[in-house]
Parts: sequence; C-alpha cells; structure tokens
Amino acid sequence: MRPNPGRIERNIEELGRIGKVGETGVSRLTFTKDDLAGREYMIEEMRRAGLEVTIDPVGNIFGKRVELTEDPSLPSVMVGSHIDTPLVGGKYDGVVGVIGGLEVVRMLNDERMKTRHPIEVVIFAGEELTRFGSSFKGSLPVVGSCTEKLLKEVWVDKQGVSYWDTLASVGLKPEEFEKAKRSPESIKCYFEMHIEQGPVLEDIGKSVGVVSAIAGATRGWATIKGLPNHSGAFPMRLRKDALAAASEIVLEMEAAARREAHLGTVGTIGDLVVKPGVMNIIPGEVTMSLEVRGVDIPSKNRVLEDLRRKFSEVAASRNMDIQYHYNNLGDDDPFVLDGELRAFLEESAKQEGIDYIVMPSGAGHDAMFMTRITRVAMLFVPSVAGKSHVPEEFTETKDLVLGTSVLAGAVLKMARSR
Amino acid sequence: MRPNPGRIERNIEELGRIGKVGETGVSRLTFTKDDLAGREYMIEEMRRAGLEVTIDPVGNIFGKRVELTEDPSLPSVMVGSHIDTPLVGGKYDGVVGVIGGLEVVRMLNDERMKTRHPIEVVIFAGEELTRFGSSFKGSLPVVGSCTEKLLKEVWVDKQGVSYWDTLASVGLKPEEFEKAKRSPESIKCYFEMHIEQGPVLEDIGKSVGVVSAIAGATRGWATIKGLPNHSGAFPMRLRKDALAAASEIVLEMEAAARREAHLGTVGTIGDLVVKPGVMNIIPGEVTMSLEVRGVDIPSKNRVLEDLRRKFSEVAASRNMDIQYHYNNLGDDDPFVLDGELRAFLEESAKQEGIDYIVMPSGAGHDAMFMTRITRVAMLFVPSVAGKSHVPEEFTETKDLVLGTSVLAGAVLKMARSR
Repeated sequence: MRPNPGRIERNIEELGRIGKVGETGVSRLTFTKDDLAGREYMIEEMRRAGLEVTIDPVGNIFGKRVELTEDPSLPSVMVGSHIDTPLVGGKYDGVVGVIGGLEVVRMLNDERMKTRHPIEVVIFAGEELTRFGSSFKGSLPVVGSCTEKLLKEVWVDKQGVSYWDTLASVGLKPEEFEKAKRSPESIKCYFEMHIEQGPVLEDIGKSVGVVSAIAGATRGWATIKGLPNHSGAFPMRLRKDALAAASEIVLEMEAAARREAHLGTVGTIGDLVVKPGVMNIIPGEVTMSLEVRGVDIPSKNRVLEDLRRKFSEVAASRNMDIQYHYNNLGDDDPFVLDGELRAFLEESAKQEGIDYIVMPSGAGHDAMFMTRITRVAMLFVPSVAGKSHVPEEFTETKDLVLGTSVLAGAVLKMARSR
Repeated sequence: MRPNPGRIERNIEELGRIGKVGETGVSRLTFTKDDLAGREYMIEEMRRAGLEVTIDPVGNIFGKRVELTEDPSLPSVMVGSHIDTPLVGGKYDGVVGVIGGLEVVRMLNDERMKTRHPIEVVIFAGEELTRFGSSFKGSLPVVGSCTEKLLKEVWVDKQGVSYWDTLASVGLKPEEFEKAKRSPESIKCYFEMHIEQGPVLEDIGKSVGVVSAIAGATRGWATIKGLPNHSGAFPMRLRKDALAAASEIVLEMEAAARREAHLGTVGTIGDLVVKPGVMNIIPGEVTMSLEVRGVDIPSKNRVLEDLRRKFSEVAASRNMDIQYHYNNLGDDDPFVLDGELRAFLEESAKQEGIDYIVMPSGAGHDAMFMTRITRVAMLFVPSVAGKSHVPEEFTETKDLVLGTSVLAGAVLKMARSR
C-alpha cells in the first residue's frame, strides 16, 4: 500500500489553478468565488474516491468512507485540514492535509481494504485569518466553541460584511451553527498533516516531523498616543513621538522572546501603522499587533510580563497614553497532542524506514481545537526555505508521499482498532 | 497707521470657509478645486485693495501696488506666503503671511500713503508637501531652481499625475516655467510673516518672533529588507525582522537628535510602512522617511553621521539589506536671513512697544529659496499649543495684529528707502 505520487501531484496542481495568481501564487480567501470553486473541486474528488459528502451549516465539508467500512455507525477516524488561503498564498498550506487524507482513502480503495471504523476526510472552512481577521472559523463551531457574537460581530471583513452574512450568502445556514457541533462519540480521533511553515525540517534534512504540541498564540493590539506636531518647529524635549515609543516596545518584544528562544517561544509585532504617517509630522499615533506563541506556558508568560513592564515604563518615561488588550479566543494556552496517536505515527514512520523528528508546532491549526472533543495527532512535511503564505511556498512531492505514507499507517491502525 | 483687526479676521474666516472640513479644518490641497477657489478669493481681495494682479506661468500670484507708488519700475518690496494646505490643515498656516501683507497695503491705502518702491504681495503656489510629495513648488521656479524633470517626474501625486500636467489642466503654462524666474533686479527684498508651528512663543509669552535663520531639512528614505516568514513557525534565531531593525534606527534618530537638542537640531521619522503588515507574518520590509533639520550645520551633520553608523551596524548585526538615500533638493543647508532687514523688524517692534524674541525657524518656508535672489526677513506669530497642519491650528487675532504692525513698519521702511 503506497501513496500514488502522480495522483497527489495532479490534485495539488489542479487545485492550485483555482485562484491562481502569477506563476505559483494562489488566492482563495475564505468564501470568495475562488474558494467556493476550490471546494467544489474537492467535493468532486471526494466523490470520485467513493466518499459520502455532507456539508454542515457553517460550511465544513465531510467525506465519509462508508462502502468498505465494517460498521459505518462507529466513531470516525477523521483526517484533513483546510483549503482556503491568505490574500496571496501558495499551493500547499492546508491543501496537503486534505489531499493527504483523501490519498489515504484512495490507497485503501486501491486494495479494496476494509476498516472497522469509518474514515472521514474533513475540509474545515475559514481556517485563514486574512479575510475576517480571525482564524479557525470552521473548526470552532465543530467543537462547540462558536457563538452568535463571533459570527455576527467579531468575524467581520474590511468591507464590514460579517461571517454570518457571508455564510448565508453562499447558501449555508449560520442560524444553525450549533448543529455543526460534533459529539465526541462521533469521532474516534483526528489526524492532520500540514506543511511545517518553518525552516527546521529542511535545516536538518528530515522529511517528516511528528508534532508533540501546538503553541498557543496570545494575540492583541496596542495603541500609543503621542502628539502629531510639526517636525521642524517642535524641539526634541517637547515632543511626544508615538513611533519612538512603539520602537521601544518592538525591541523589547524581540529581546524578551530571544531570552526564551531555547524553550521555543516566539514574539512578533507583525503589523504597525503610523498616523498621520507624513515625513514632516511627528508620529501622533501608532497601532500595532502583539503576538506571543509558545508551547511552554511559563516561558510565554515571562515574555508577556516583560512586555507589560515595558509598556508601563514607556508610558511613564514618555508621559504618553498607551492602551493594549489581548483577544481571549481560548487559544492562548498550548495544545498537547495525544501520546498514543503520536506513537502510532512514529511507529508508522519506522516501519516505512522514514527518518523523522518530534517537534512542536509554532503555527496554529484546526487540530488545536479538535483536542477539545477528541484525541488528536499532527505531522509536518518540510517547507522549502521555511516559506508559507506566499507564492514561493513549496513542498517536494517526494516529501508529500513520505508524509502520506506515515499518515496512512496511523490512520489505518486506528480505523482497524476497537 | 494701525492694522484693522476686523479686516484681518474677515479674511481669515472667509478664506477658511473655502475647503472647510468640520468646525475649523481646511483642505485646499495644491491646485484642487478648493485651492483654486481660495486663489480666486484672494485675487478679488487684492484687486479690492487696488493691487494689479498678475499670475506667472506656474501659478504664483503677484499683486503690485502701482497707483500710490512713486516709481513702479523700481524693484519691489515683496511680502507674502502661501494659501494651499495639507490634506486637512487649519486656517492660519501660510494664510497669515498673505493676509498680513495685504493688510500692510490696505493700511498704507487707508492713509493714502505713497512709497518710493512698489510693494508686491505674493501668493506662492504649491508650498505644501502633501499632494505632490514635495514642497515649495512655486518659489523654486521664481528663484530659477526648477527643472522640467522636477515638474514632470519628481512632483507627481499618488494618482500618478505630474505637477506639469496639473498646471496645464488649470490653464497655466508649465512649458514656460523658466519665465517664472524673477530677476534679482526686480525685487528689493522679501518679507514673510508665518505662524511659528511650534510651542516656543506661547511658552515664553511673546507675540512676535523675529527669525534669525531657517533650518535646512535633509530628507530621505530608507528601505530595510527582511524575510516575511510565518510568525509561529520561525524560531527567533532564524528571523530577519525588518521592523525590529527599523526600530533600532528610529531610536537612534531620536537619541542622536536629543544629543544635539541644545543647538536646535531635530530628527524625525514621520512615516514608516511595514509590509506585509499582518499579525502572523514577520515584517519582511519596512520603508521609512528620514528627516534631520537644524540651523547649525556641524550639529546636523553629527546626527546624519550617527544615523549612517547605525544603518551600517544594524545591517551587519542583523545581516539584512538596508538602502537609504537623501533627496538633494538644495535645501539641506540652513538659510541665513538678512541682518539689516531683521534689524528693521526689531526696530519696528520696539517702536510699537511689542515684546519679541529672536529665534530660528525649524520649519521650512518659501523665504528660504528667496534668499537665492534677494534679501529676506521673516517673523513669527504664536501657534497655540504649537499646533499646525491640523484643524486645531490657531493664532489669536491680537497676535496677528501685532505681527502685522511689526511687518508694516519694516515693509514701509524698505519701500521708502533708496
């Protein structure tokens, strides 16, 4: 039982042509026309593999293997990821987990192999942050962690359109979002294969990473208010320069995270906007994003505490107003994955003679939330140059094949077991 | 001979209604509809004061007092400023110099007072930087420091429209820009009254500042290139964070300028743009403005040298590509104003019993370039809270009256002298 490289490559290429931008870029922002076309393509591929496709009220797509299943009423072994992209991403992020899951089904089908539990391939909707400013909009309802407020007020795009209205406009039923919740009894476990999005696997020359835990992300925003005075006429001593104040914060974020780097903690200020943003006016206001991630809670908290202290210091020393807050979306703490499932992935790799490492995931995934209702495991395939969410995002087919082999072994083990 | 406060106030208010934004804001971006309407209003006011109005090929407006002049063919005593505004500015910047100059004419007219030399009120076009990214677009041609390249390629707005085409579209003649050059023989001297745009006069409770020199502005742009990787998946040690690098530059600009603050030097990074500017992507590129101003050349150069050193250090320590350049528009060096004219302003203030200080100008003015062809003097009236280029920009009428008194004394002295 081997993955079919040509079949995997064909899916990657065909899906990559939907929303294509330039040579290798892909734009399938959540529930735009191209995302919908990508979903249709995958539904068709699922059906070709004999899966029974259902779509829940918030747009998650499930393809269930029923025909060659001994008892389709048993809890499913779920496997999948997402296919939406940031504004311009690549062909691999999310996609490899969906196509890898589908390929596992096709591998079993090739051998007419039966399993005790059904296998269910899932495509979570709205995983990417870009359009609605928030991630995991499909998996949160599945685990019962969604609210009307999130759907109507928090998940809103830059044109002011809510996720609720978007779902309704594409024929889904946001008002029934609670029905999207899956009972723990309906799922035996969840596997997700994903590109690493970092440089580690490539650096050490391995094709597979078995994920130990997923970093939680503490995210927020800070606003620093200064005085937007004339840059020529205002002496240095009388200035309140919001950008200079912000720069102290940016450097403290970096320094604090560097002090915790040995524990895998990272801190990032990815977005920073200066107002009025004119050469001859002292910056009057800066808004900036705050993000701290890590799998070690005390380490992450030390960075947050260092930042808190720096905000106070800067506000006091510069006599400026600084406001900041963190989103509390429940994904602040790291997510520990299932030890037994992880051992099955490792066993599967060993059986196939595939060299792997165990590593944490710095990036967030739908798998995080699935831990709230079932046992979860993840594996990584390499990202060339660590690139993701850009057109240059690339994973070699040979690595996709190796990852899918490892995935297949563990999925089969679980689907056959009691 | 006294300025008429009601007349000054009426002009300020009537002109302030053209392009009005909110309660006190004004938007008359260079050669937009509202700027053109403002110009028409001022031309009408000039004519009401008996001035003969001419407009040069690049839109500078000159109103010459001929009737009560002994010899109108003698060099003019020129007085004025500009009336265009940034995107949303206030009612005073530039305007007080034009209305103050016009009021001087009306004061003389009230007394039917004759002068030997003609007085010429000037409204320079395109003084503000905002629309075309560059200042002093009217005075540069007047002093012969304009080129076709500036008009066609450098002075271009965000829609890609050149200043050249803009001039043509409002019926002016950019192709004749060289004819806008005024011969030194045609101008005896130039006076400009302006709001301070800083907090100094208000701070020490004076109504008038006699300007000693105008700071030169060294302006440029820097681009820092990092790697826009995933914020969760990229360990701290492998990052190239363009914003963290930029923050070191911002803080060095501030520190270096603070070290030179006793000499009046200022340094500002007013604009900074992060790409892609997304919470979960490490900043891949930062572009930022650089501006250093001062009246003391060695002091300014020390700041520029400190910056240069910091750019090298940051590029080396972070192994990142940093490019920067300065515009060479010839306004880097400070502009020393005329000692005798300045003495006349001081005498005029003393005669009227008006308390003044002598101070440098941190902001740039058309007066800078006028030093290339004639003798120049400037005076300041206070800016409440040091505000300018914002709707809150405000100068009390009593201060405008005092400033105009001082101006009138010096203008009259020059216009009567041989």
